[in-house]
Amino acid sequence: MPLYSARVLVSLRPSVLDPAGEATRAAASRLGVDGIRRLRVGKAVEVELEAADRQSAEDQLKLLSDRLLANPVIENWALELQDPT
Amino acid sequence: MPLYSARVLVSLRPSVLDPAGEATRAAASRLGVDGIRRLRVGKAVEVELEAADRQSAEDQLKLLSDRLLANPVIENWALELQDPT
Repeated sequence: MPLYSARVLVSLRPSVLDPAGEATRAAASRLGVDGIRRLRVGKAVEVELEAADRQSAEDQLKLLSDRLLANPVIENWALELQDPT
Repeated sequence: MPLYSARVLVSLRPSVLDPAGEATRAAASRLGVDGIRRLRVGKAVEVELEAADRQSAEDQLKLLSDRLLANPVIENWALELQDPT
């Protein structure tokens, strides 16, 4: 079966506070990087998945993202699926 | 000053164990997603940065990634910098 490479980007919903991001932004300013207008910390999950075809890979990755990778109450996710190598 | 959008992807070095990734992979299998050959959990930091030019934006983001976002002992990082909007 072909091997699909994918990346799922999980980010906090815009209305949700991001304390890690705020702390990083404050530390950046102390480091001399002071042009930051926005900084949000999310997750990037790299997956390699064997699937019969692209549709099946996409279906499985969507299930995974909805049920395991993201908490839909506070997070959004986006899928980047590449063609098999 | 132009506003640059960037994403810094922070991933564990290949030699470093990833317990969160292993747990997710095991849970995926219980969910019926069993074609996963690799799964690694990293960070995705979304940044909007005002800078005089692209070179300056890149320099600041590299400093930020090296010094704050990634722990170079166990992590690698990659920068995706877009043109100003």
